[in-house]
Amino acid sequence: MVQSSSKLHKVALERLKERGVSLEEIAELVYDLQKPYIADISMEICIENVRSVIKKREVQNTILTGIELDVLCEQGKLSSPLQEIIQEDEGLYGIDEILALSIVNVYGSIGFTNYGFLDKTKPKLISKLDDHQNKDQTHTFLDDIVGAIAAAAASRLAHDDPGISDIMK
Amino acid sequence: MVQSSSKLHKVALERLKERGVSLEEIAELVYDLQKPYIADISMEICIENVRSVIKKREVQNTILTGIELDVLCEQGKLSSPLQEIIQEDEGLYGIDEILALSIVNVYGSIGFTNYGFLDKTKPKLISKLDDHQNKDQTHTFLDDIVGAIAAAAASRLAHDDPGISDIMK
Amino acid sequence: MVQSSSKLHKVALERLKERGVSLEEIAELVYDLQKPYIADISMEICIENVRSVIKKREVQNTILTGIELDVLCEQGKLSSPLQEIIQEDEGLYGIDEILALSIVNVYGSIGFTNYGFLDKTKPKLISKLDDHQNKDQTHTFLDDIVGAIAAAAASRLAHDDPGISDIMK
Amino acid sequence: MVQSSSKLHKVALERLKERGVSLEEIAELVYDLQKPYIADISMEICIENVRSVIKKREVQNTILTGIELDVLCEQGKLSSPLQEIIQEDEGLYGIDEILALSIVNVYGSIGFTNYGFLDKTKPKLISKLDDHQNKDQTHTFLDDIVGAIAAAAASRLAHDDPGISDIMK
Repeated sequence: MVQSSSKLHKVALERLKERGVSLEEIAELVYDLQKPYIADISMEICIENVRSVIKKREVQNTILTGIELDVLCEQGKLSSPLQEIIQEDEGLYGIDEILALSIVNVYGSIGFTNYGFLDKTKPKLISKLDDHQNKDQTHTFLDDIVGAIAAAAASRLAHDDPGISDIMK
Repeated sequence: MVQSSSKLHKVALERLKERGVSLEEIAELVYDLQKPYIADISMEICIENVRSVIKKREVQNTILTGIELDVLCEQGKLSSPLQEIIQEDEGLYGIDEILALSIVNVYGSIGFTNYGFLDKTKPKLISKLDDHQNKDQTHTFLDDIVGAIAAAAASRLAHDDPGISDIMK
Repeated sequence: MVQSSSKLHKVALERLKERGVSLEEIAELVYDLQKPYIADISMEICIENVRSVIKKREVQNTILTGIELDVLCEQGKLSSPLQEIIQEDEGLYGIDEILALSIVNVYGSIGFTNYGFLDKTKPKLISKLDDHQNKDQTHTFLDDIVGAIAAAAASRLAHDDPGISDIMK
Repeated sequence: MVQSSSKLHKVALERLKERGVSLEEIAELVYDLQKPYIADISMEICIENVRSVIKKREVQNTILTGIELDVLCEQGKLSSPLQEIIQEDEGLYGIDEILALSIVNVYGSIGFTNYGFLDKTKPKLISKLDDHQNKDQTHTFLDDIVGAIAAAAASRLAHDDPGISDIMK
């Protein structure tokens, strides 16, 4: 039996919340990305676009799978050497980026730039998640997922209003 | 510390074996795909190309991650509803295809066709893995990974000998 | 100035028609793919899903770009060796597959299987386009685009009605 | 007949040169990206990795196709509205990013971050190519291709020496 979309949606939102991620903080990333290009941007429109991204089943599946791996890793339940690779957020692992791209892809290729930029510069929430100081927490997948949702929301904003597509240049 | 490539390689081969996959069976898929196009194809060259694909770190990471999720699912250790989604190999999940594509990608886009064909027609080993009769076994990720390795090996064969590239048409 | 979506949509439909592709023939591919899984499938619902795919800007951009390259090649206007590569639909080229994947991606990864299957088995319209007998015509990009639109329409059908998602298994 | 790899390689290098791109300038981008992480990095090793990326057939095909579209656009030979879309480097077009990703993909997903970062911050050569002041020149595809080659070369560097993989984090 296929999971209902509303069930998946509810669980995806819960898991983000449990892991300390608020939609407002993701929307903040979108806001900062787009501010230079959209005069009348508001946090409301950013949150709305983040919400729409999370309504997509592909995005929900990625959130569930990525967070599951992070949590299992925190609990030490993965087998070696995958446990160590994810725990240390090893640079050559790459599966976290692949999952993130499946989110970015949903709104076309124009989001890749923003995803890459967020992943490299790690502003605000992403830097908080990527903080390797707290050895008890693993956010190897979550920081990429958050960056991807923000990048996808920015793409959605641009597609909805092509007049503002300079943002993607 | 980054895992050494030889360590990852060894573990990837072991995990495939533990899950009942032999390189010979993957090579058989490659052989059947290419037989119509390459007069002097041999199982040896197919096995050699399968081996080369598995030497790639991206491929090793995908094998480790996909099989881990299959095994954790068999043990009932995933949280709901991800546990049910992977257990039933739900058609809209899509994360198994995304991981598989990361393998196919390594040898360029020409492998997509063979991957899709194998995933749809499910010959030999793939059909054995995809058999949902045995309720104790979960191969949601493994069948896609095997198809992707075979498709990538076929691409590698074609790239190595452009004269035989008609195979990819 | 950004092209309006309705303008792009109109041109994409015109170009498909000019190149001898009808939406009905694309819908037929969707119908044949899904018939085994959906008891009450109709050509109407297949055409409707094909239409929805072509309303996406990413898809329109791919149609315009791919057909442009096919046409310039027919007119002998590409520089060598790209002219020969596209004219002969060379197996190792791969850019046609990459463009096609940008269409499939829009409805998530579950369409890859159907795309690969169509590209390999070349039923009906695809075989007509891929016919290399007529030396005056180049459809190197178009046959992949058509297969990708059909695969994306099949994914859309499945996402709209998760109850029928067995089709994607 | 399939084009020989050495022929394609030669033409790809020539076309980059004709369009004002030197391997040294691409290597500079790699150098700046990696300098913070690799104490003994040199321009030599960066150039060597750029060279290796361009030896890949997928990369050569992308270079040839992207530059062809840029040049045909400069000559006003594309049909409307594709001509205007590429001429203005329209933000929602996305095909330039898709071609670029086919280059990045060759060395796995870890290059996406660097590609996105270069595309967003446009350092040195990329900013020169992306300069829309010179109305006679179109580099809609070339700037993305250059960023992708630099990102792929950085991934290659990291894969070759996993000890330096912190660069990709």
